[in-house]
Amino acid sequence: MAQPLPQIPGVRLSAVPAKIKNWQRDDVLLIEIAEGASVSATFTKNAFCAAPVLVAKEHIRRGNIRALLINAGNANAATGERGLQNAQQCCEGLAAVLGIDAAQVLPFSTGVIGEHLPVQKILDALPAAASGLRADGWEMASRAIMTTDTRPKTASRTVEIAGATISVVGIAKGAGMIQPNMATMLAYVATDAAIPQPMLDQLVKDAVGQSFNRISIDGDTSTNDACVLIASGATGEVIADTHSDAYAHLKAAIVEVHIELAQAIVRDGEGATKFVTVQVNNAASSEEALRVAFEIGESPLVKTAMYASDPNWGRLIMAIGNAGVDNLDTGKVNVFLDDVQIVDAGGRAEGYTEEQGKKVFQQSDFTITVDLQRGDVSEHIWTCDFSHDYVTINAEYRT
Amino acid sequence: MAQPLPQIPGVRLSAVPAKIKNWQRDDVLLIEIAEGASVSATFTKNAFCAAPVLVAKEHIRRGNIRALLINAGNANAATGERGLQNAQQCCEGLAAVLGIDAAQVLPFSTGVIGEHLPVQKILDALPAAASGLRADGWEMASRAIMTTDTRPKTASRTVEIAGATISVVGIAKGAGMIQPNMATMLAYVATDAAIPQPMLDQLVKDAVGQSFNRISIDGDTSTNDACVLIASGATGEVIADTHSDAYAHLKAAIVEVHIELAQAIVRDGEGATKFVTVQVNNAASSEEALRVAFEIGESPLVKTAMYASDPNWGRLIMAIGNAGVDNLDTGKVNVFLDDVQIVDAGGRAEGYTEEQGKKVFQQSDFTITVDLQRGDVSEHIWTCDFSHDYVTINAEYRT
Repeated sequence: MAQPLPQIPGVRLSAVPAKIKNWQRDDVLLIEIAEGASVSATFTKNAFCAAPVLVAKEHIRRGNIRALLINAGNANAATGERGLQNAQQCCEGLAAVLGIDAAQVLPFSTGVIGEHLPVQKILDALPAAASGLRADGWEMASRAIMTTDTRPKTASRTVEIAGATISVVGIAKGAGMIQPNMATMLAYVATDAAIPQPMLDQLVKDAVGQSFNRISIDGDTSTNDACVLIASGATGEVIADTHSDAYAHLKAAIVEVHIELAQAIVRDGEGATKFVTVQVNNAASSEEALRVAFEIGESPLVKTAMYASDPNWGRLIMAIGNAGVDNLDTGKVNVFLDDVQIVDAGGRAEGYTEEQGKKVFQQSDFTITVDLQRGDVSEHIWTCDFSHDYVTINAEYRT
Repeated sequence: MAQPLPQIPGVRLSAVPAKIKNWQRDDVLLIEIAEGASVSATFTKNAFCAAPVLVAKEHIRRGNIRALLINAGNANAATGERGLQNAQQCCEGLAAVLGIDAAQVLPFSTGVIGEHLPVQKILDALPAAASGLRADGWEMASRAIMTTDTRPKTASRTVEIAGATISVVGIAKGAGMIQPNMATMLAYVATDAAIPQPMLDQLVKDAVGQSFNRISIDGDTSTNDACVLIASGATGEVIADTHSDAYAHLKAAIVEVHIELAQAIVRDGEGATKFVTVQVNNAASSEEALRVAFEIGESPLVKTAMYASDPNWGRLIMAIGNAGVDNLDTGKVNVFLDDVQIVDAGGRAEGYTEEQGKKVFQQSDFTITVDLQRGDVSEHIWTCDFSHDYVTINAEYRT
């Protein structure tokens, strides 16, 4: 187990059981943010984005956010006008308890789509949640937001900046429906540095681009996803210059926390037994590199081959060939499994043996590298295999 | 069982066992086409298209095709220069046996990618293949091209045109890796009508657009696929006017044969237990209608829900929301499972019960209809569910 998570002065958390589903567990999480913090977020690009996403987008536009209210068990998605009212009512309920404005609350929901939120249960749980707020609640918080996750996901870093210790802590939930552009994924990351709003907005965009937008479990993108970055400013350390070393160090720590959480989501993908990095080198553009990487990382045929520890390179080149790369010279394509070359100039590599490939694919963690020899751009994504358990989990999710 | 397949004067077939893999079955198919026939084809769009595809494209460009040579068990894909030579050598071998030119032979291969074709085995089998040619060989032919298919696929129609009976017969193979733009799918359709080359070229494009480009099993597209349409002209009935009733009747028959074969491929998708039509109505364009249909038809989460007979409409709207339809007004979207309305104006339909949806999803054959209320364009595709057996089949294919 990792070290205990640092605390972030200016951020307190509390998780309580509200019985949103018929279960015995914390399912409502409250995150309280001190006055004066900056808060930034990115949201799902699914056109059917959920009611809480619509409300949160509107509230964050107004700024001065003081609390996050998250529930598991019900997504409040595809719930129409009533869904919006329900999300709003939860914000109002929490605002009354905390003595803030309803627009200072960001609501989040994850769980089953298309059922109305049990608002009263959430409202009833709020006083206990508010009275239980504590700075060391991150671990507990990471458990309260789980759905089909098999384990909680946390990450942290500390950096020394101008003599002060700055911390970054994050929690996330993932599992199925994970794909770029924010999938059924929630992530909350906080630091005690003070970061001006426009800088924080850019930071969350950059960090998500390097992390959650580079993972794929099943190619589906959910209706509810969000990633929130909080800069409480409680240390008084103001990071105001993007060209400073201080900014570079802090940004690296924030990006690392995002990447660690994103990778933890892939490792805990529904039914996943393998963690696979797909690296594409020497592409003509970032866009085509990512297209090739995702075509491999999302191909059910490639993913079942990973599951079977079968280095089926025919499926790999099939996926590369399907990525829609303009005028791809297949005779230049090289493919490596870790450091074993399997494809040389578009054909089977001389001296490659099935045993070499199998040895790599049998590992729980390996890298597929594709060299396109078209340019000098490299990109990578992280994905997992496709197992019997994926089918079992998703065929039985609601029962 | 259907009626015996009609014969197509001018087309003879023969299947023989060449032991391309270690199995006891016909794996080489020869289709001989009489002098004067028109032959047209469409091929995979995968950038890593196989050696025989490259050779066949070059040969068909020259015209006057007299024979098709198809093998199962080895795809001759990603085999580089030697793969091209092997495909060419097979054409030359057959040309010598039949007394035609090598450029009059179209080669086709299906099976494992990245292994060199056992050319000698194929060459050795050709004399027996040639001497066994017969007009009633369609059924036998349909078995020789199978790979992971569990049953052969045939279809036929007859139409009366100007007092003559014109026949259309087709065979196909499919199973995994099926997706629009020609997947690991081979289809051979023949008619005894005489159709001028340019008209036939358009006909195969139209027929494939209405059939094989509307099916999806796992969203992957293979390196080898091809669909060939032969007009032997042996009845002497020349169809030369696309505005004639004769053309309309013949085209309808040809399209129907293509659709029946395409549907048979979906019904026999790897591990498939359900056949599902996804119908999208009132879209603004054909392109966006198909995008929504394929997003539903290819979503692993939707497909596992189909397998589980779970009318998980949250996953349906998730897929619709992911289709990238510009400015989609989700408040206008309606969804039906057969004639049961499940989504009304973007939310759960009033009066809809889980039991109603489950009753539809429990059927082996049903339709999901999405009404976007944005325009007047309708499109449909056919897909199948995603089962435990899909994973099993694809995790064990090469062992």
